[in-house]
Amino acid sequence: MAIVFHSKNKRKILNDPVYGFVTIPNDLIFDLIENKFFQRLRRIKQLGLSNLVYPGALHTRFHHCIGAMNLMDQSLNILERKGIKISQEEKEAALAAIILHDIGHGPFSHTLENTMIKIPHEQISIAFMKRLNEEFNGKLSLAISIFLNEYHKKFLHQLISSQLDVDRLDYLRRDSFYTGVSEGIISYERIINMLNVHNNELVVEEKGIYSIEKFIVARRLMYWQVYLHKTTVAADEILKKALKRAKELSNIGHDLPASTSFKFFLENNFDASSLSNTNVVEKFALLDDSDVISALKEWTIYDDDILKTLSINMINRKLPHILFGEQQCTDKVVDNILNELKEQGFNKKEIAYYTSLGSVENEAYKHSGNEIKILRKNGDIEDIAEASDNYNIHALKDTVKKPFFIFPRR
Amino acid sequence: MAIVFHSKNKRKILNDPVYGFVTIPNDLIFDLIENKFFQRLRRIKQLGLSNLVYPGALHTRFHHCIGAMNLMDQSLNILERKGIKISQEEKEAALAAIILHDIGHGPFSHTLENTMIKIPHEQISIAFMKRLNEEFNGKLSLAISIFLNEYHKKFLHQLISSQLDVDRLDYLRRDSFYTGVSEGIISYERIINMLNVHNNELVVEEKGIYSIEKFIVARRLMYWQVYLHKTTVAADEILKKALKRAKELSNIGHDLPASTSFKFFLENNFDASSLSNTNVVEKFALLDDSDVISALKEWTIYDDDILKTLSINMINRKLPHILFGEQQCTDKVVDNILNELKEQGFNKKEIAYYTSLGSVENEAYKHSGNEIKILRKNGDIEDIAEASDNYNIHALKDTVKKPFFIFPRR
Amino acid sequence: MAIVFHSKNKRKILNDPVYGFVTIPNDLIFDLIENKFFQRLRRIKQLGLSNLVYPGALHTRFHHCIGAMNLMDQSLNILERKGIKISQEEKEAALAAIILHDIGHGPFSHTLENTMIKIPHEQISIAFMKRLNEEFNGKLSLAISIFLNEYHKKFLHQLISSQLDVDRLDYLRRDSFYTGVSEGIISYERIINMLNVHNNELVVEEKGIYSIEKFIVARRLMYWQVYLHKTTVAADEILKKALKRAKELSNIGHDLPASTSFKFFLENNFDASSLSNTNVVEKFALLDDSDVISALKEWTIYDDDILKTLSINMINRKLPHILFGEQQCTDKVVDNILNELKEQGFNKKEIAYYTSLGSVENEAYKHSGNEIKILRKNGDIEDIAEASDNYNIHALKDTVKKPFFIFPRR
Amino acid sequence: MAIVFHSKNKRKILNDPVYGFVTIPNDLIFDLIENKFFQRLRRIKQLGLSNLVYPGALHTRFHHCIGAMNLMDQSLNILERKGIKISQEEKEAALAAIILHDIGHGPFSHTLENTMIKIPHEQISIAFMKRLNEEFNGKLSLAISIFLNEYHKKFLHQLISSQLDVDRLDYLRRDSFYTGVSEGIISYERIINMLNVHNNELVVEEKGIYSIEKFIVARRLMYWQVYLHKTTVAADEILKKALKRAKELSNIGHDLPASTSFKFFLENNFDASSLSNTNVVEKFALLDDSDVISALKEWTIYDDDILKTLSINMINRKLPHILFGEQQCTDKVVDNILNELKEQGFNKKEIAYYTSLGSVENEAYKHSGNEIKILRKNGDIEDIAEASDNYNIHALKDTVKKPFFIFPRR
Repeated sequence: MAIVFHSKNKRKILNDPVYGFVTIPNDLIFDLIENKFFQRLRRIKQLGLSNLVYPGALHTRFHHCIGAMNLMDQSLNILERKGIKISQEEKEAALAAIILHDIGHGPFSHTLENTMIKIPHEQISIAFMKRLNEEFNGKLSLAISIFLNEYHKKFLHQLISSQLDVDRLDYLRRDSFYTGVSEGIISYERIINMLNVHNNELVVEEKGIYSIEKFIVARRLMYWQVYLHKTTVAADEILKKALKRAKELSNIGHDLPASTSFKFFLENNFDASSLSNTNVVEKFALLDDSDVISALKEWTIYDDDILKTLSINMINRKLPHILFGEQQCTDKVVDNILNELKEQGFNKKEIAYYTSLGSVENEAYKHSGNEIKILRKNGDIEDIAEASDNYNIHALKDTVKKPFFIFPRR
Repeated sequence: MAIVFHSKNKRKILNDPVYGFVTIPNDLIFDLIENKFFQRLRRIKQLGLSNLVYPGALHTRFHHCIGAMNLMDQSLNILERKGIKISQEEKEAALAAIILHDIGHGPFSHTLENTMIKIPHEQISIAFMKRLNEEFNGKLSLAISIFLNEYHKKFLHQLISSQLDVDRLDYLRRDSFYTGVSEGIISYERIINMLNVHNNELVVEEKGIYSIEKFIVARRLMYWQVYLHKTTVAADEILKKALKRAKELSNIGHDLPASTSFKFFLENNFDASSLSNTNVVEKFALLDDSDVISALKEWTIYDDDILKTLSINMINRKLPHILFGEQQCTDKVVDNILNELKEQGFNKKEIAYYTSLGSVENEAYKHSGNEIKILRKNGDIEDIAEASDNYNIHALKDTVKKPFFIFPRR
Repeated sequence: MAIVFHSKNKRKILNDPVYGFVTIPNDLIFDLIENKFFQRLRRIKQLGLSNLVYPGALHTRFHHCIGAMNLMDQSLNILERKGIKISQEEKEAALAAIILHDIGHGPFSHTLENTMIKIPHEQISIAFMKRLNEEFNGKLSLAISIFLNEYHKKFLHQLISSQLDVDRLDYLRRDSFYTGVSEGIISYERIINMLNVHNNELVVEEKGIYSIEKFIVARRLMYWQVYLHKTTVAADEILKKALKRAKELSNIGHDLPASTSFKFFLENNFDASSLSNTNVVEKFALLDDSDVISALKEWTIYDDDILKTLSINMINRKLPHILFGEQQCTDKVVDNILNELKEQGFNKKEIAYYTSLGSVENEAYKHSGNEIKILRKNGDIEDIAEASDNYNIHALKDTVKKPFFIFPRR
Repeated sequence: MAIVFHSKNKRKILNDPVYGFVTIPNDLIFDLIENKFFQRLRRIKQLGLSNLVYPGALHTRFHHCIGAMNLMDQSLNILERKGIKISQEEKEAALAAIILHDIGHGPFSHTLENTMIKIPHEQISIAFMKRLNEEFNGKLSLAISIFLNEYHKKFLHQLISSQLDVDRLDYLRRDSFYTGVSEGIISYERIINMLNVHNNELVVEEKGIYSIEKFIVARRLMYWQVYLHKTTVAADEILKKALKRAKELSNIGHDLPASTSFKFFLENNFDASSLSNTNVVEKFALLDDSDVISALKEWTIYDDDILKTLSINMINRKLPHILFGEQQCTDKVVDNILNELKEQGFNKKEIAYYTSLGSVENEAYKHSGNEIKILRKNGDIEDIAEASDNYNIHALKDTVKKPFFIFPRR
C-alpha cells in the first residue's frame, strides 16, 4: 500500500535568488518538476567540484533547469510579441524540453561522465524523456522531437541547444551569481529582447551585437576562471582516479562499500546500448552526488593504500600540485618530477594513480555550422564574426588548449 | 605511508557572493580552515531542509563560518578605530572562536539535534575545540575562554553570541541571499559601524537605533517565512520520524544499510557524558548530510513499510499535509482527521509515524539578561526596548507560538 | 515655422537600474512620456534636497512615474491571471493615470509646496491632466475618473493611491536603491503577487501578511532615516527661508534675478482658484529644479544680506545646526540659544530668518478608512492591524512627531 | 558679516549605492569635500546628456570623485600589505590628487569642452588645485606633483591616470550601475587585489589577466553602448549647436538671458592663457549644469528662430534623426538628405545649424607608451597584449571610428 504524503496546494511561484520569482507556467511543467526523476536533480550540483574553489557554487541542476525554463518562457513571449507564431502546444513542448534537457546528468556529471558510465548524458536524457513520455501518455512527444532537432521550427531547438541558447544564458548568470565571479554576468534580459526568428531560425537583431560579443567573452572568461580553474581541474583528476581505482578493485573481486546503485555501476560496464535495459535506467535514476561522497568517506578507511589515499585527499581537500599551461608543463619539467617521485620511492602503480598529464581546451566561438546569426536592419543575415565591424571576433574562434600535470608532494 | 597531496600556495582571498571577497586574516585562521574538522562543514547545509522550499538555500556551515569571521574582522577594526584597545592576541582568539563556533553541528543540525544524538551542538563544538587546541599546541586557549564567556572583555564573547552578534548578522544576510527572500536583508555594514564598547560590554550608538529595530523585524520575518516555513516544518517532522523509526529498528536488531559512522549513532545512544570518549568524537567527525541522504535512499527499498514510506516521501519530496497556526489546529479538526485515518485503515503505529502534533515558537527580542544596549549621545546606556521612542519594541518581546499538525493523505 | 527634430523610431524598452528593463506597454503611454509636460519631470528630483545627505539620491519624478507604471502593468497582469476582469480600456486608463499621477509636482516639491505656490500638487496634477485630455482628444477621461476615485472599480484607484499602492512600492524601492539605504528594500514582487480583488476593493492574500508588515516597517524607517533625516530637514528649512525672503523682497519692489517663470511666481500669489487661468498653468509648466538652483546662485551675490547669506549656505552646503527630537528641543535649550544669538548681535529679522522651530511627523500605518485589507484563506476580510497575530501592528498606528530647532553658528 | 551655518559634527561615512559605505579617510579629504569648489561638482552630471537615453544616469562628478578616492584608499592599503612602502604623506597626497582630479570640469563637460571655453579640463583642474593649495597653505603641493606626474613614484600617478587607474575603475562601475547597463560591470575588487608595483611602476599580477581583458572589453562596450550611444551623440550635437548659436548672437550684440557667469563665457572668448586671470577662474567656479538648462529654457521663448528651435528641441527631448556608422552615412545618402532639406525650404544657415556631419571614435586599448603591464610569476614584465596567450588583444588596439550625420525632419 503506497502512501503518498502529498500536498494538493500546488506552489506555483518559486523564489530564485537569480531572477527574483519564477512562475511555473502550466500544469505539465509542474508535474514534471514534481516527478521523482526531476527531483533527483536536487542532489546533483551544477558545477561538480567547483565549490572546492568557490564555496558558494553549490547550486544544482534542478535550479538551473527551472531557471532555463524561465528564460524559455520569457523568450517565447518576446518572440510572440514580435509576431512569430507559436502555438500553445509548441510552447508547452519547448518548455518541457528545456526543463528536461539535463535530466540524464549523473553525479559530478562532467567529471565522471566517462568514468562512471560510458554514455554521454544527452543520450541518457533521451532515455529518461522516453520513459517519462510513457508515464505522461505521449504528452512529451513534441518536446522530444524538438529536443532531437527533428521539428521543422528549428528556432525552438536552437533556444534549447545552440551557441546562444537559454541553457547558456541561465548557467552563465547562475554560475556567476553563486561563484561570486561577477565578471561572468551577462545581460540575459537584453539578449532575450533582441532575439528574433528568420526562416524558422533564431537570429539576433543588429543592435544586440555588443551584448552578444560580451556574452562570448564572458563565457570564455568563465571557462578559464571557473569551469577550468586549475584547482578544480586538479580535484577532478583526483576524483576520476579514485573512481578508476574503485572500478579496478571491483573488477578483481573487492566488495567495496558503496550504495546499492553505485555498486551496480562500479561492478558492471555499460555503454549506449545498455539504455534499452530498463534496470540500467532505473538504477541510474537512483544515483546522485551523495552516493559518491558517501563512498569516498567509507573508502578513507578501506584497506587499499591507493584508494584510501585518494579518498582522504578528496574528502579533506588536500589537493595535489598542478602545473598549468604550456610554459609550465614542459617535457623537461614533467620528466624531472617523475624522476623525483621514483627516487622518493613511489612505485609505478602509485605514480600512475597520483599523477596525471592531460589538457583542457575551450573554443569561445564555433564557426562551423551553428554560428550566431545577426539580423541587419536591412534584413540581411550575417554570421556575428562577420557582422561585427569594430571587433575582431575571429580571434575568439581559435581553440585554446592548455596542458596540465598534477603530482603529489610528500 | 601517508601521502599528502598538498598545495603550498595558500589561497588567501575567497570569493563570497555575499561580500565579494573575504580575506583570510592570518595563518592560524588559514590552518583552521584547512583542518579536516572544519572541511567537514562543507558538507553540512546551513538551512537543512529549507532547500525543499527555497531551492537556492544550499549554502553550508563552512561558508557561514567564514562569513561570520569576516564580519568579526571588520567589527574589531572598527572598534579599534574608535579607540577600544584589543591586543593582537585577543584579535586572533576572537577570530578563531567565531570560525569554530559551529564546528560541532551535525547533519541537518537543528532538525536532528535531539534525534541523532542527544547532545546540544554547542557542547560538541567545545569538545572539538579542545581536540583542536591539543593539535594546535594550546594556541586556542584564549579563543575557548572567549567562546565560554570566561574572559573579562565580555564584548568579545558578545560579538560571537548575543542578540546582536556577527553570527546573526552573517546568517540573516546569507540566508536572505541564498533563499532569495530579499526582505530579510539587513544593513550589516551600518550596524557594524555603529558598534561600540562601554564597560567592556558591546553597545550600539544611538543613531543606529532604526537599523537595530529593522534587524529585529527582519529576523522575525526570516523565522516565519523561512526557518519555520510550514512546508519545511513538515519536511523536518518526516525526517525526524524516519530517523526515529531507523533507531527503533536498529534497537530491535535490524542491520540497516547506512555508513559506518551513521550506523554507530543509530545503534548506540549517547549523551553529553559520552563526549569524553575519543571514539565518539572521532566518529561524529565523519558524519555529514550525505550520510543521511544516502541512507534514506537505501531505505526506500528496505523491507519495512514505515521506514520505506517515510524515506520515499523524503527523497521524492512528497510532503505531508500540514495545518499551521491556532486557527487551523483546533482539537476538533485534529480529532476528525485522526478518526478519518483510522477509518482509512491506518493502524496505531502508522498513525504515530505518519502524523505529528507539535508547535514552533519564536521570540523576536529577548528582554532577560542579554538585551541590546543603546549608547545615548549623552553617554547613558539603555535597553533598546526603552530607548526607542517611536516604536513599541515591547510588542516584539512576546513569544509567539504556533501549533502544527501534519498528516498523510492517501 | 516649428521644426520638430523627431525620431520616428520609438524606443519601446527603457533601462531601469531598479527593474532591469521596463517595457512601454502601449502607444498612449509612449506619447504621454514624449509630451513636454511629462519631459519636465526629468528636471525634478524625486527627493528634493536629500542628495545633500545621500549623494546618490538624484533620481527624478520622471523615472519614478515610469517605474510606478511598470508596477501597475505587472499588477494588472497578475490580477487578470487570478480571474479579475479588467478591460483593455480600463488597463490603458489605469496606466495613464499612474504615469501622470505626479505631473503637477513643482521644483523641490514637498519642500516648496506651500512657499512657492499655495496649491497642493494633486490639484495641479488634475489641471495638467485636463489640459492633456484636450490635447489627446478625450482619451484620458477614464484615467482622470480613476485618479479622482470616481470610477466604480475602486481597486484601480487604490493601486494608484492608498496605503499599499504602486506609487509607494516604486518609491520605497527606488529611494532605497539610489540612497543606498538597503534597509528600505521591500519585496515589491512578492507583494504584487499577493494582491487580489474582493468586492471591487484591493486586498492582500493572507500569506502576504509578513511582507506587508515588513513594508510598513521599511516605510517608517525610510521616513526617519531618509525623508525626515535631520540634515535634510535643516536644508529644507533654509531653502524655504530663502524663498520666503525672496518673495518678501519681490513684494517690496526688488527685481530679483530669476528665470521668467520663476519670477512670475515670486511676484504673484496664487491659490487653487488660479488654476483656471491658462497662463498660470503654462508658466508652472516651465518651472523645475534648475530655476531654483540658478536663482540661488545669482542671489549669492545679490545685495541683501539675508538672502545672500541663505543662498550662499544652500549652494555651498553650509548647513545650520539642528536640534532634533523632544529630548534635545526643550524650551529651555531653545530659549538659551535665542538669547545667545541676540547677545552675538543678530537682530530680530535675522533671527527670524536664520532660526526655525517646527516639527516633523509620521504615521506608519493609518487606521482610518483606508486600511490595508487581508483576504483570509476562508474568504474573510480583515484589517491588517487585526489580522496579524504575531505582531502588534497597533504600535505603528500612533503618529510620531519630532520637534526640531535650527540655528546658525558664527 | 559672513554668517556660516555650519555643523561641527563631521559626517565621516557616506552612503554610496555602488560601494555600500565610503569612509572619509582623513581631515584633509573631509575639508576638500566641504570646499565650495568641490561642492560645485554636485551640480555637474558625470554623463552629461546620457540621461536622455538612460534615465537613471544622473550621478555627478562629486559622487564619482569620492568613489575614485575610495578605490585609491583600498588600492594603497593593498599595495602596503604587499610590502610596497608608501609614507603617510604620500598616501594623503594621492588621495587628495584623486579627489581633485575632475575639479576643473565644466557643465556638460565633454560636450561643451570646446564650445563653452576652449581650455582642456585638466588645465582648469590644475588652476583650481593651485588656488586650493594657497587656501590650504601648501598642503597640496605633493598632490599636485603626483597629478602632474612629476613625482618619482610613478605608480601614484598611474593610479590616478593611466589605462588602468581608479578613475576608470570607478566610472565604469558607477556608470554601469546608474545606467542599468549591467554588461559594463567590472570586478574592481579583483583588479585592485591584483595590483602590484615593480620599479616604481604599476603592474598587474599574472592571475589577474582575465579580469584585465574583461575590463578592456567592458570599457569598449560602455563606449559604444553608452558614452557614444547614437541618441546621446545626437543630443550632444544639438546642444553644441545651441551654444554656438548663442555665442554667435552674443558676438553680434544680443543680450541673451543667462546667468551672470554663463553670460561672461558667452560674451568673451578665453584660452589656456586666461587661466592666470583670477576673475576667469572665479567665474568658472560658478558654472554648472543648471546654468545651461536654465538658459535653454529661457531661449525657448527668445526671438531668434534658430536658437529657439534648438532650445525647444533640447528641453522637450525632440531629438533629430541620426545616421550612424559607415554603412548608413554614405556620401550619397547625406547628399540626398541635404538636397531634400533645401527643397523643403531650409536655408543655408538653418542647414548649418540643424544638421551635423562628424564622427566618434574609440580605441579600446592603447599600445603606445602607457600599456598595462603584467607581472609574470617568474618576475618578468610584459605588455598585456603580449602576455595574453589565449586571446588576441591586438584586435582591440585598432581605433574604431564611426561617422554620423544628423538632420531634422519636418
